[in-house]
Amino acid sequence: MKRIDSVKNEHVKRWKKLKTKKGRETTGRFLVEGYHLVEEAMKAKMVEYVLVTEEADQQSLKDEDIIIVSEQVLKELSETETPQGIAAVCILPNEPDVERLEGQYLLLDRVQDPGNLGTMIRTADAAGMTGIILGEGSVDVFNSKVIRASQGSIFHLPVIKGNLEEWVNRMKNAMIPVFGTALKEASSYTAVEPLEQFALIMGNEGEGLAPSLLELTDQNIYIPIHGEAESLNVAVAAGILLYYLKS
Amino acid sequence: MKRIDSVKNEHVKRWKKLKTKKGRETTGRFLVEGYHLVEEAMKAKMVEYVLVTEEADQQSLKDEDIIIVSEQVLKELSETETPQGIAAVCILPNEPDVERLEGQYLLLDRVQDPGNLGTMIRTADAAGMTGIILGEGSVDVFNSKVIRASQGSIFHLPVIKGNLEEWVNRMKNAMIPVFGTALKEASSYTAVEPLEQFALIMGNEGEGLAPSLLELTDQNIYIPIHGEAESLNVAVAAGILLYYLKS
Repeated sequence: MKRIDSVKNEHVKRWKKLKTKKGRETTGRFLVEGYHLVEEAMKAKMVEYVLVTEEADQQSLKDEDIIIVSEQVLKELSETETPQGIAAVCILPNEPDVERLEGQYLLLDRVQDPGNLGTMIRTADAAGMTGIILGEGSVDVFNSKVIRASQGSIFHLPVIKGNLEEWVNRMKNAMIPVFGTALKEASSYTAVEPLEQFALIMGNEGEGLAPSLLELTDQNIYIPIHGEAESLNVAVAAGILLYYLKS
Repeated sequence: MKRIDSVKNEHVKRWKKLKTKKGRETTGRFLVEGYHLVEEAMKAKMVEYVLVTEEADQQSLKDEDIIIVSEQVLKELSETETPQGIAAVCILPNEPDVERLEGQYLLLDRVQDPGNLGTMIRTADAAGMTGIILGEGSVDVFNSKVIRASQGSIFHLPVIKGNLEEWVNRMKNAMIPVFGTALKEASSYTAVEPLEQFALIMGNEGEGLAPSLLELTDQNIYIPIHGEAESLNVAVAAGILLYYLKS
């Protein structure tokens, strides 16, 4: 079993770069922290190295390529205040090949908040979505806050980066109805019947969907506001719509 | 018009204490930051002082008791990284008197995360709930992160602190059906019909509802998980259930 104690070790220096988007893209690797996420990454067969402190519980890890690290090393790589003594270097998955487009998709247009993106990945997983299409200008899906908020769901369903206008056209060619979300010139979501196949687009926290996308959809829907709030949080709105359209 | 430049001013020292729960409770005051929240607090007639920097836009504020403060003073009181140049000292509202219990209520059992609480207040407002009952052991509702996540909805509907077991009994006495949320020994939420009056209880992020509460409810419901996620975020789950029960 290998052992790394110094924060000046070359591996540690390299792994530290995975805290930035650029570092993740250049190396094709990303970091996860904590027992739950490391386990999920192991199940998904995406782990390159498991890093544990001597004090951490190593029982469930015997078959993996473990490296024992000092607390200083783990702290150097961690973005949480109280690291759990375990982290993993994971290999970025290849973009999944979507040969035959079918099922239920969540499309996300320029979502900025990592908590919102992670929560929507978790919600889409719970609702049994086929996959997520993450449009250009969104927060990086392998950002540690996104991974944490996803609660492991990032390992359960494909998250594909791409140009949303192209994907909307692909959905339409595959006869999958595409719903945009808007406040103006839209129908209440309850006017739509639940569907076997659909694509739902959620938009940027402040601006909503790009007008060019709203023009491409089959139908645009909104969630009625009964009280005085101006709007719903985007992840809450996604939950309401996905569970409604599924049912 | 008054003016305060020094962070050592007695008012500033006193207001700084409003950043802690103890300070808010002792003085009966709390702070809000930013144009949108100050406006909402003004509409709700809960503002004692508006604090603005000389550079900030004061047009919409002429009728209020404004104090001009230095950027240092505002920074001292702020919990955000980029203060908008405006804040307000607000007076804590009296607990609303619920003489005749009717309508639709959201009850919260030991919710810990300020973002989750704020988002649920916003969602309950959007869904047109009558009020929120916040059980003992929950995060403080006048915590600045709760206020921010509520996006002003904290000024739109009553949030009453209380003992949830007592409140569940009051609801039942008023013939309002009470729904708990649970994973075991519960029905899918779609088995319930939407209702004119109801009370829904959401629980702690990790532990869910206290067993003593689950025993008191009329019916316990759950949201089916179709994918591999273990659960939904509590604010997303609240959104799905409130919008379903309302419709």
